[in-house]
Amino acid sequence: MSDNFRETLETFENPRPERDYWIEIQCPEFTSVCPKTGQPDFGTLTFRYVADQHCIELKSLKLYLQRYRSEGIFYERITNRIMDDFVAVVQPRRCTLESRWTPRGGISSVITVEYPDA
Amino acid sequence: MSDNFRETLETFENPRPERDYWIEIQCPEFTSVCPKTGQPDFGTLTFRYVADQHCIELKSLKLYLQRYRSEGIFYERITNRIMDDFVAVVQPRRCTLESRWTPRGGISSVITVEYPDA
Amino acid sequence: MSDNFRETLETFENPRPERDYWIEIQCPEFTSVCPKTGQPDFGTLTFRYVADQHCIELKSLKLYLQRYRSEGIFYERITNRIMDDFVAVVQPRRCTLESRWTPRGGISSVITVEYPDA
Amino acid sequence: MSDNFRETLETFENPRPERDYWIEIQCPEFTSVCPKTGQPDFGTLTFRYVADQHCIELKSLKLYLQRYRSEGIFYERITNRIMDDFVAVVQPRRCTLESRWTPRGGISSVITVEYPDA
Amino acid sequence: MSDNFRETLETFENPRPERDYWIEIQCPEFTSVCPKTGQPDFGTLTFRYVADQHCIELKSLKLYLQRYRSEGIFYERITNRIMDDFVAVVQPRRCTLESRWTPRGGISSVITVEYPDA
Amino acid sequence: MSDNFRETLETFENPRPERDYWIEIQCPEFTSVCPKTGQPDFGTLTFRYVADQHCIELKSLKLYLQRYRSEGIFYERITNRIMDDFVAVVQPRRCTLESRWTPRGGISSVITVEYPDA
Amino acid sequence: MSDNFRETLETFENPRPERDYWIEIQCPEFTSVCPKTGQPDFGTLTFRYVADQHCIELKSLKLYLQRYRSEGIFYERITNRIMDDFVAVVQPRRCTLESRWTPRGGISSVITVEYPDA
Amino acid sequence: MSDNFRETLETFENPRPERDYWIEIQCPEFTSVCPKTGQPDFGTLTFRYVADQHCIELKSLKLYLQRYRSEGIFYERITNRIMDDFVAVVQPRRCTLESRWTPRGGISSVITVEYPDA
Amino acid sequence: MSDNFRETLETFENPRPERDYWIEIQCPEFTSVCPKTGQPDFGTLTFRYVADQHCIELKSLKLYLQRYRSEGIFYERITNRIMDDFVAVVQPRRCTLESRWTPRGGISSVITVEYPDA
Amino acid sequence: MSDNFRETLETFENPRPERDYWIEIQCPEFTSVCPKTGQPDFGTLTFRYVADQHCIELKSLKLYLQRYRSEGIFYERITNRIMDDFVAVVQPRRCTLESRWTPRGGISSVITVEYPDA
Repeated sequence: MSDNFRETLETFENPRPERDYWIEIQCPEFTSVCPKTGQPDFGTLTFRYVADQHCIELKSLKLYLQRYRSEGIFYERITNRIMDDFVAVVQPRRCTLESRWTPRGGISSVITVEYPDA
Repeated sequence: MSDNFRETLETFENPRPERDYWIEIQCPEFTSVCPKTGQPDFGTLTFRYVADQHCIELKSLKLYLQRYRSEGIFYERITNRIMDDFVAVVQPRRCTLESRWTPRGGISSVITVEYPDA
Repeated sequence: MSDNFRETLETFENPRPERDYWIEIQCPEFTSVCPKTGQPDFGTLTFRYVADQHCIELKSLKLYLQRYRSEGIFYERITNRIMDDFVAVVQPRRCTLESRWTPRGGISSVITVEYPDA
Repeated sequence: MSDNFRETLETFENPRPERDYWIEIQCPEFTSVCPKTGQPDFGTLTFRYVADQHCIELKSLKLYLQRYRSEGIFYERITNRIMDDFVAVVQPRRCTLESRWTPRGGISSVITVEYPDA
Repeated sequence: MSDNFRETLETFENPRPERDYWIEIQCPEFTSVCPKTGQPDFGTLTFRYVADQHCIELKSLKLYLQRYRSEGIFYERITNRIMDDFVAVVQPRRCTLESRWTPRGGISSVITVEYPDA
Repeated sequence: MSDNFRETLETFENPRPERDYWIEIQCPEFTSVCPKTGQPDFGTLTFRYVADQHCIELKSLKLYLQRYRSEGIFYERITNRIMDDFVAVVQPRRCTLESRWTPRGGISSVITVEYPDA
Repeated sequence: MSDNFRETLETFENPRPERDYWIEIQCPEFTSVCPKTGQPDFGTLTFRYVADQHCIELKSLKLYLQRYRSEGIFYERITNRIMDDFVAVVQPRRCTLESRWTPRGGISSVITVEYPDA
Repeated sequence: MSDNFRETLETFENPRPERDYWIEIQCPEFTSVCPKTGQPDFGTLTFRYVADQHCIELKSLKLYLQRYRSEGIFYERITNRIMDDFVAVVQPRRCTLESRWTPRGGISSVITVEYPDA
Repeated sequence: MSDNFRETLETFENPRPERDYWIEIQCPEFTSVCPKTGQPDFGTLTFRYVADQHCIELKSLKLYLQRYRSEGIFYERITNRIMDDFVAVVQPRRCTLESRWTPRGGISSVITVEYPDA
Repeated sequence: MSDNFRETLETFENPRPERDYWIEIQCPEFTSVCPKTGQPDFGTLTFRYVADQHCIELKSLKLYLQRYRSEGIFYERITNRIMDDFVAVVQPRRCTLESRWTPRGGISSVITVEYPDA
């Protein structure tokens, strides 16, 4: 798996860095591939973060997430990896990322990662 | 962008200033313009505040929000700016403002600002 | 506006005063008149209280609220006034009153009062 | 009103008394009689408790609640009485009981009792 | 009842053990048998856990839960037993398990177990 | 089972008999007793009719339905019997009666009777 | 009861009389008084009509409906009367009027009138 | 697969055979086994029928449906087979059977059979 | 009001003109101005049509609808005008247009136009 | 675009060809690519058909739909093409296919194709 996905992410200057405020971004059209079965997975990603100097640029986030369309990767790993990329580029004060996946075999999963660690 | 929008906001005297109580105002018909694409944006603004000496007059709030109908401004900036105008005119003890935007490119955003800073 | 509305409120003896417990009462059929426009307003009132020696008698509460049917009064003032009458007559240990109003000009309001003051 | 209703309640041994865990039981088919009007009342009872040595046996709870079918009793009193019977027989570590009643005269009520007292 | 069900559970290595994060797994297709009536029971199990060194492998969890299809066992006991098996195999830092059962005789139950004990 | 329940039903004069129009009445608080198990049944009755010379008086309908509170009678028979009583007293031009029952043993029923026969 | 309520209704010229099209108007804030109990009734009125030469002017409809605020009148009669006034003033090609009332004594009603008669 | 399942079905005499009326029965707790994968399937069966001389006895229907718990059978075949058994035993005037299955591989199915053939 | 709005609408060739099939397009972000009050109106437009030789190009439809952002025009007129423009440019075999408007003064409207005339 | 996608579709023998019955299949995880923008599209496909001699095999349908994951194709063309492939392979007596797409630029689409042509 290529490691330079995060280069796709772009930011813009936080218009009010002196204030702590929350930005929530819902991305219900995420899809990747299960590395075990080769079948596509579908999920909704929700970012919630307090910006420091930078805010995420939404179109770049969309393009970044689309790069996973052909990647074979498990739920737990993908959620942590996207969180790491987001934190590395945006450098938020606080952030949570929730990934909510459609059912497989009658079972559905939700992964929730938090930064900094609780 | 003109800066005197807040002149439109009017208040009336808080009928019970000795009591802390919450007033929530939902405005689902907000629209402005994306400065990048020139396309209209649509959102729902929700104010929640504890009045001090003044309460916001609802018709003036409606007219104030309508002034953004032709303004080109990003989500993060607009939410902070409206908060600043609201706080400057109403001078509440506490206030939150949430802006919830319709999806663009499959992605939706919610911005939540708090006064005084958390 | 007449001031003796609270005479309509009746109570009965709390059957278990030694225990703190919550009573919630929803009244979705409240209507009064906007003093500015002369138009009727419609709202849902929700009382939540911990009784001390007295519980509110529901039929008397219904008749009390009906007395506002022709009263011209603003959201903030009416919510505080009903709270004051309720507290004066029932003398609860704790109480909140929420009034939730139907939209006017695309804007809806919710007022929440708490006793004793937070 | 007969006082021996609680004899109907039966328990079985808690299979894991060394662990604190919550058991919630929803009973949407409760009915009694209003002592003032003689009209039937309908409500949903929800028990939430942490068992100590005993768990409530569900069929006995159903039969116990059916004994109120012809009883004339007010909301506040019935909720406290059922709570007392439940606590006396099951002897839980903690318990809440919520009774949620269908509307009468456009007004609905919810009573919430907690053990031990908050 | 056979005791070796937990042998069916498999794990994989937690891809980010240095971070505390939550994994939620919903299993709405659980069925077992009531030991009293011999009738099938139906429920939804929801696991929420913070992995330590291991994550649960979902297909093995599905197969493990299917082993209860012919088991006669009460709600309280089954929930505690599944929790014990899960904790023994996965060794999570924290875990909750909720079992939500379809109504019987007009009554529904929800059992919630927590590890470590609250 | 007593047969004179229908004497409880009262009517008033249809204010517009020259016009065919529909009246729908929802009664979600119906309860009777299962003659096989002795357990209470709970259902929602919905009448839809076109009045001829008479309309049903709602309070008398409520009292009529309450007379089934201690009657042991099956779903199919009760629905047909109430329909017969309603038609005999109100003499509507057309009528349907739907009874919708809460689940028993994981199974729920709806009975729909029509007059005149389809 | 005064009979000249319909004078309040105003119309404007149908902008496209050569085309049959449907106009639906929902009025969820209707209130009148029960002539038997003196208690207020609350309902939602829904008009659906095909205009001929005239369309109803919405503000005049609002004012017309407000005139029933103190009128004592039964569900069936009020629905027919409003229909007659609407048809007399607007002279639509087709029209239905549905009135949906909040529950009284656990029973709710819906009246549906059609013009011309089915 | 054994063929004598239908012997489990029992009926009782239709209390009003001279009237055509509909009986709907919802069974949300159906489970069988996929013959291809050996995995359990879960579905909701809904019967709607007009009885002739016989009505289905609900407890026998429940026991009949439980016999499929260990049967390996496809959606289309099971729905047709249950329909055939129901028609053979109950001999209704008209009947439909809908089976609605939980998703597998992101795909859900609904089968609807009608008697007599449309 | 300018009359050349329809020049903004563009089409592409129907990929299967030999087959009658329905295309539905929901546009929840429509806004225009009330010519009487000068206040903005908000609505959802839903087109349903059977294409003949041409399909509507969605981006051009979006731009076309945005041209009404500053137009003062009533509900009935705007719905008919958009229908006329759509029919003139797309020349569908059949078409309906529904406009659903947010409440004003507690009243909401829905206009439904059909082509060819019913 | 390759034309041999339909080779992926497999069928099995209809277990009851002498009976007309409906099979509905919901596929909420469809994704393709917009040929104009290069951006992914997401939709839900719903097939409803009456089988003749063959039923669609669900796993083959899933694999067939996944082949569109990298295809650039418009809504109208894709819906017609999938319909043609389905009809060619399954040869149903009747069939409808509905494709429901997530919003783009604030606009959502639904395409509904029917076989044989209405």
